[in-house]
Amino acid sequence: MTDRAVRVGIVGGTGYTGVELLRLLAGHPHCELATVTSRSEAGRPVSDLFPSLRGVVDVAYSEPSIEALCECDLVFCATPNGTAMTMVPSLLEAGTRVVDLSADFRLRDPAEYSRWYGRAHACPGLLEVAVYGLPEMHRAAIRDAVLVANPGCYPTAIQLGFVPLLEAGAVDAGSLIADAKSGISGAGRKIEMTTQFCEASDNLKAYAVSGHRHLPEIVQGLSEASAAPVQLTFVPHLTPMIRGIHATLYARLNGGEADVQGLYESRYRDEPFVDVLPAGAHPDTASVRGGNVCRMAWHRPQGGDVIVVLVVEDNLVKGAAGQAVQNLNIMLGLDERTGLKSAALLP
Amino acid sequence: MTDRAVRVGIVGGTGYTGVELLRLLAGHPHCELATVTSRSEAGRPVSDLFPSLRGVVDVAYSEPSIEALCECDLVFCATPNGTAMTMVPSLLEAGTRVVDLSADFRLRDPAEYSRWYGRAHACPGLLEVAVYGLPEMHRAAIRDAVLVANPGCYPTAIQLGFVPLLEAGAVDAGSLIADAKSGISGAGRKIEMTTQFCEASDNLKAYAVSGHRHLPEIVQGLSEASAAPVQLTFVPHLTPMIRGIHATLYARLNGGEADVQGLYESRYRDEPFVDVLPAGAHPDTASVRGGNVCRMAWHRPQGGDVIVVLVVEDNLVKGAAGQAVQNLNIMLGLDERTGLKSAALLP
Amino acid sequence: MTDRAVRVGIVGGTGYTGVELLRLLAGHPHCELATVTSRSEAGRPVSDLFPSLRGVVDVAYSEPSIEALCECDLVFCATPNGTAMTMVPSLLEAGTRVVDLSADFRLRDPAEYSRWYGRAHACPGLLEVAVYGLPEMHRAAIRDAVLVANPGCYPTAIQLGFVPLLEAGAVDAGSLIADAKSGISGAGRKIEMTTQFCEASDNLKAYAVSGHRHLPEIVQGLSEASAAPVQLTFVPHLTPMIRGIHATLYARLNGGEADVQGLYESRYRDEPFVDVLPAGAHPDTASVRGGNVCRMAWHRPQGGDVIVVLVVEDNLVKGAAGQAVQNLNIMLGLDERTGLKSAALLP
Amino acid sequence: MTDRAVRVGIVGGTGYTGVELLRLLAGHPHCELATVTSRSEAGRPVSDLFPSLRGVVDVAYSEPSIEALCECDLVFCATPNGTAMTMVPSLLEAGTRVVDLSADFRLRDPAEYSRWYGRAHACPGLLEVAVYGLPEMHRAAIRDAVLVANPGCYPTAIQLGFVPLLEAGAVDAGSLIADAKSGISGAGRKIEMTTQFCEASDNLKAYAVSGHRHLPEIVQGLSEASAAPVQLTFVPHLTPMIRGIHATLYARLNGGEADVQGLYESRYRDEPFVDVLPAGAHPDTASVRGGNVCRMAWHRPQGGDVIVVLVVEDNLVKGAAGQAVQNLNIMLGLDERTGLKSAALLP
Repeated sequence: MTDRAVRVGIVGGTGYTGVELLRLLAGHPHCELATVTSRSEAGRPVSDLFPSLRGVVDVAYSEPSIEALCECDLVFCATPNGTAMTMVPSLLEAGTRVVDLSADFRLRDPAEYSRWYGRAHACPGLLEVAVYGLPEMHRAAIRDAVLVANPGCYPTAIQLGFVPLLEAGAVDAGSLIADAKSGISGAGRKIEMTTQFCEASDNLKAYAVSGHRHLPEIVQGLSEASAAPVQLTFVPHLTPMIRGIHATLYARLNGGEADVQGLYESRYRDEPFVDVLPAGAHPDTASVRGGNVCRMAWHRPQGGDVIVVLVVEDNLVKGAAGQAVQNLNIMLGLDERTGLKSAALLP
Repeated sequence: MTDRAVRVGIVGGTGYTGVELLRLLAGHPHCELATVTSRSEAGRPVSDLFPSLRGVVDVAYSEPSIEALCECDLVFCATPNGTAMTMVPSLLEAGTRVVDLSADFRLRDPAEYSRWYGRAHACPGLLEVAVYGLPEMHRAAIRDAVLVANPGCYPTAIQLGFVPLLEAGAVDAGSLIADAKSGISGAGRKIEMTTQFCEASDNLKAYAVSGHRHLPEIVQGLSEASAAPVQLTFVPHLTPMIRGIHATLYARLNGGEADVQGLYESRYRDEPFVDVLPAGAHPDTASVRGGNVCRMAWHRPQGGDVIVVLVVEDNLVKGAAGQAVQNLNIMLGLDERTGLKSAALLP
Repeated sequence: MTDRAVRVGIVGGTGYTGVELLRLLAGHPHCELATVTSRSEAGRPVSDLFPSLRGVVDVAYSEPSIEALCECDLVFCATPNGTAMTMVPSLLEAGTRVVDLSADFRLRDPAEYSRWYGRAHACPGLLEVAVYGLPEMHRAAIRDAVLVANPGCYPTAIQLGFVPLLEAGAVDAGSLIADAKSGISGAGRKIEMTTQFCEASDNLKAYAVSGHRHLPEIVQGLSEASAAPVQLTFVPHLTPMIRGIHATLYARLNGGEADVQGLYESRYRDEPFVDVLPAGAHPDTASVRGGNVCRMAWHRPQGGDVIVVLVVEDNLVKGAAGQAVQNLNIMLGLDERTGLKSAALLP
Repeated sequence: MTDRAVRVGIVGGTGYTGVELLRLLAGHPHCELATVTSRSEAGRPVSDLFPSLRGVVDVAYSEPSIEALCECDLVFCATPNGTAMTMVPSLLEAGTRVVDLSADFRLRDPAEYSRWYGRAHACPGLLEVAVYGLPEMHRAAIRDAVLVANPGCYPTAIQLGFVPLLEAGAVDAGSLIADAKSGISGAGRKIEMTTQFCEASDNLKAYAVSGHRHLPEIVQGLSEASAAPVQLTFVPHLTPMIRGIHATLYARLNGGEADVQGLYESRYRDEPFVDVLPAGAHPDTASVRGGNVCRMAWHRPQGGDVIVVLVVEDNLVKGAAGQAVQNLNIMLGLDERTGLKSAALLP
């Protein structure tokens, strides 16, 4: 770690992950916000769009400029899918490291990318260079990575919940079900009818049951952890809260008595941002609101062969911007908790 | 149906199912509210406790009196578990028919009752007399019943969702999972920390994963519909909405190609209060808010062998008071939709 | 009242007032929905857009056609401001009566209309023909009206709250303040950033403090009730609830002891949809959710010379569609409560 | 400031202001939490009651003990009204400084205290010793205070909003109206029917219109700022959000043209936690959620003689715990912003 502040850029700072990055970086002692870009809001002070940042973030949006971004030590891409892959090659060439919060570099297989995102990948060669930014699985590789593909909110919760069981071979990898409930901010800062207050409030519905884009990313990660082939049914739901993911995970236990609590505790003992509750607890999403933590507990109803794992996280923090800052800390050799120590906001 | 209005009594009219009964009965053309009891609020006008009923319900709560109740043609028990079974024998003896909205008469096996409700049953002999009030399964028996055990909110949604598959033997009955999300009113009108606004709002959590009291009632019903033994994992969640149940059901399909849409449509073709959506739809709870309807759709993600059924209902209407009025209509030989035709309130 | 059903048309049936009209008319025993138009959704079943109406409203949207509308006995215009005034002349000529839920015919002075709505009025001559559809003030004129200008949500609550005081000369008409809080549905069914769930939930703000379009309509109405010139400060707020208006009204009492409770009770004694609570009560918006009622109570804090009147209504019912049906009932000589008897949905 | 950490105690750490103090102090670099008491939860880890503090606050509640508290440098009383006044004399005697978040020391006049809080004051002599902890009005006195009476949430917003106008004599002090909307957490962490989710959600009501306990405290503060006698009508409302106060203030301008924007900007130029927006802005409560800031803007509708000031704050931060930490910083000679720099959580 050098003495001077790390120069950080943000591409696409007008969405909810963008504003969350701005909030977290404002409290990070070693980072200096060099530039934050927005094509639509160029010239406008950030705090004009987000009054919560008045007196905290004192810069204006600028037009995206590869030159300016290349002068940064590290750039966060908080852009819609398909944008980062057009900029990353130039950034890497200039020696700027990248944490991409979009889906552009999460899948290893370019064919899978095309299938789920409806376009060819612009730089498939970089898919092997990119490191999947789930520190609890890839910390060593993240340290030296030039390009980190920051996981999405569902994938973080679901992978962290299943991994201890799969690594230990404790469950039938072909029987996985993830019933996930997301707060509305998971849909991003877009205007849509479905996420209007009068439509989304006092309401709940499943969506994309036939196939959500996060599915292949989750299966890819779970497959790495599992000796046996993974089959996952993933059903996301839109729920009337601003932030929060609650993943309820189901799997069939293999024979033999597993010390499930021991598996979880030993797997995550040294993890600063995974909190294993006592067996039988019921974590709630409010307990992680605004905090960079993934909290979980498991159950075995009626002593049967189905194990239920309950996992909560804040989709904008451990599920997006907080994890991105965690990756930055790892990449820069900082204490992983730097700038991420704030407790959740409760109530 | 006689010419005079049916004299109806409500025992326990201060809870959410009680006030919902009052609302629905106020719009029922053939019922006359003879008495509504409350030990704690005796003497107080109903509309004083519930200003929404000012100008609509013009009676005061009275002390529970078996004599007064026995003069009714039909009594709804909207009491906490354990109360109805102390009153029902006298009511039946007096010739008053009963629809019990509590759990007292839902389980056939008194041992199961003791196990889940923590007390011995007061009149186990009546458990065989009671008819389980899910019209879509027991309409004929309800018609002549003197005692109807009105199902709870989770059981209604989960049974209606699974029954077509189980009756047709289309799924492995040992693989059932019901991940259910309930609005807060499902917890009743009690003051509790968990259901305080600041605790429950912008929050989501599972509860009672180790075993919820509705589990045996659901298994009992599903077992009637299934040739094979039923194994069900049931995980309820508390979600920040006032009304609504969303049950997400999972089962493993048996081999052979089933016409699932056909199964559902033919099973519920003549049902006035079950609405089968086109395959692949995503029903939302807001579409049933205040209405007596159970709406459902199914999915088969990635063409795999897991079927997902999405079921929504208003827990206070089709999951409680509306179903109770539906049972009354059947018991009295009225058009089953009488007093239940109002559309859901949207937004 | 003739024997046959009244043929009713709705122009613009895709907004929240439109769907509320559809819900209420579905339960109206004397109306038949002849046509419901939508340029953008023509051909699509109404219940496809609003699944809450499945099994309740069985028609599809049609292209707006003056011919088809002219065959109706009565047409509701639930269109954005500026649309009704282009259609009403033809409808009236054809003998079709109109209840316009937009602002097109609420102001008597065409210059005021231009000033607040930014366009010249298309048929200023009809402004004198139109009757302002607040039954509590203009019932006799509504009876024979061919064109009724249905008041907006804020104007209904604020006028009904102030009128008894102004008519009696009990307060200084130059000192009026209306601090109003509206549920989000008051903004209509539009996609906007401000009304997205993540922006509007757990949030509260004032808006349009410099001048809201409903202001001249309110001042016009209050001036009719007051001998002295009216000065009103009107501050609307966006609050995180779906439905509901809470108007908190302030005025300075004139000298002399007024029997305020008596004023309110005698003014509204015969009104089916105004409910005067005991002095000192605190009505809440939930008590009118879905019901066609305006509920109010007054206070005189510390016995000072400021009177505070609290008024609640459902902005989509008594503040829009319910009042429109009430006007229809009056125009057709029906019992004014026809189709409007349902109790509010609580909780 | 000494080198060692300041030893801080919290009396009553189980309420919402208590948990907010714990959250803020956990991020304060110069404070060490010596003890946090709770009679009901003694022995229980704080993070067991508030899982949001797992890994952040690692102490258990202890029985309230004057001895242990007297070993602290500074004690926060986050207790119900009436408790602090029984402990403060001993604490002061031991040389421990106190910031009391309850109402016990806010009123100067013991008779007023008895009138509004229904009991005699236990140590009326200390009312003159106590300094009212609104830094923007009493910073110099707070610096040397041994006992600071931390203002409530309504008083902070309303005083900060009115003070610039009153100090300048710009408005008629006899015409003040404060229409305030509070999030539900303002009611504290108590179980009550009114604040149950199903009662408070999707609902809005005024309360305590005849006289709220915060009224005398506000009038006392405004009177200090005003040359003329103050008359205030104060109407609080319960609104369905967790945190946030929105105060809408009304006053009649005195003759003469005031540079209102200039008044506000010059009054608060050096204040770290008051943010004056451009004239005509509409601050929203979400912009201060979790942050220690009071944000405001003013309007003069239609150029009339009524001025409207819109003020927002987080009731638990600038309206309670944040302000208490701000007072601690002043008392200890620290940078006033220490531990209070976090941006608001948006969305």
